[in-house]
Amino acid sequence: MNDPLSRIRIVLSRTSHPGNIGAAARAMKTMGLTRLYLVSPKHLPEEQATAMASGADDVLTAAIVVDTLEEALQGTVLAVAMTARRRDLSAPIAWVRDAAAEAVAATGQGEVAIVFGNETAGLSNQETDLCQRLAMISANSEYSSLNLAAAVQVACYELRLAGLDVGAPPPVHEAGLPASHDEIEGLIGHIEAAAIKSGFLDPAQPKRLIPRVRRLFARAQPEKEEVAILRGLLSSLMDTRYWPK
Amino acid sequence: MNDPLSRIRIVLSRTSHPGNIGAAARAMKTMGLTRLYLVSPKHLPEEQATAMASGADDVLTAAIVVDTLEEALQGTVLAVAMTARRRDLSAPIAWVRDAAAEAVAATGQGEVAIVFGNETAGLSNQETDLCQRLAMISANSEYSSLNLAAAVQVACYELRLAGLDVGAPPPVHEAGLPASHDEIEGLIGHIEAAAIKSGFLDPAQPKRLIPRVRRLFARAQPEKEEVAILRGLLSSLMDTRYWPK
Repeated sequence: MNDPLSRIRIVLSRTSHPGNIGAAARAMKTMGLTRLYLVSPKHLPEEQATAMASGADDVLTAAIVVDTLEEALQGTVLAVAMTARRRDLSAPIAWVRDAAAEAVAATGQGEVAIVFGNETAGLSNQETDLCQRLAMISANSEYSSLNLAAAVQVACYELRLAGLDVGAPPPVHEAGLPASHDEIEGLIGHIEAAAIKSGFLDPAQPKRLIPRVRRLFARAQPEKEEVAILRGLLSSLMDTRYWPK
Repeated sequence: MNDPLSRIRIVLSRTSHPGNIGAAARAMKTMGLTRLYLVSPKHLPEEQATAMASGADDVLTAAIVVDTLEEALQGTVLAVAMTARRRDLSAPIAWVRDAAAEAVAATGQGEVAIVFGNETAGLSNQETDLCQRLAMISANSEYSSLNLAAAVQVACYELRLAGLDVGAPPPVHEAGLPASHDEIEGLIGHIEAAAIKSGFLDPAQPKRLIPRVRRLFARAQPEKEEVAILRGLLSSLMDTRYWPK
């Protein structure tokens, strides 16, 4: 319930290429955002946009098309203008990660908009003046022009992480059962016996060999089945009667 | 000097659409990455790739094309496989932000690779088996398929932020030097040879034995010296002439 991302509008202003609108819709949907606003796009979403949306046509179909940025921002409590460059009339510029955190927090008060300008010209000063924040994606100063959909992808990614409580651990690893302490000790004993039997380890002068091996397996946290595989291999190697001729 | 991003390879395996290669090159360059490897792309970069690269043609021109993922990973100390889904033989999966931090830290030891699979099929199990880490971009569970270039954009964005962050040296790990990709592959090859020589592994019916071993050592991140110890032990066990009577 109460998904902050459902109160965030992605606003694309004066987009030239329908393909970019479709790709932006896809980028949004992968990150769990669905509310797309289009401010007088050069072409309304059409075949090419749908192709690039690639399964995110629902976002495209539900997009709200308006004539002016004012209309797209009606009812919002915060609008963040994305910019690829510093501006003359420089309001302070936030990094997109910080802006995303602020945007998600502001959804507690109401609707929020993240605004992207035209592919070539970006946002006009009149447009950024309608926004309360400016935000940038950190980029190579010698080549800072992200594709529009790529910028939407990064911004939505940051919104998603800010919106989820990302303390949560990464996807659980449905691995096998971890080997017990005794099983790991059994493996290390087996390695030691093999090392002595083969002459690799002189029990009178053991050096640090077995402690090193123990440290390796402590770090590896082997599973039961992995211990079984290694012990099976050691048994085979130690009993030459069964070696193929 | 000493830019960690200059020691990171972006590896695209079996990419179908040249346009995606171009868009990925652009995504890389905006984030300050330049080293692109292409593993048997369906089509070599061509007109469409160049169009999508849009000013990042230098990255495209300098791309290294190889036949196999092994070749692309030669000489790396860490390879991170990007995956959009959980996997059966699940090595633990990290979020891309954490994986990026680890990747940047590992550039202190040598070259690092971030590996992306085919647009439709992703990476094969054989391909992920060659990598020491799996990483995911957090995404909408009902629609998680980022466009390839969009995934490259997000990963490179996280690498950039992690790389800019690295004023301080990576956490010191008072251990020995980590084994390289090639050294770990050498160890696994040695284990396989020992398993075959002793009759433990039937090469005609290999099952999942070696992939399991590979996964164990990917997790263990062995040090050079540990690899040397295990290989020394295997050599002794395989050559009974030297066994004490």
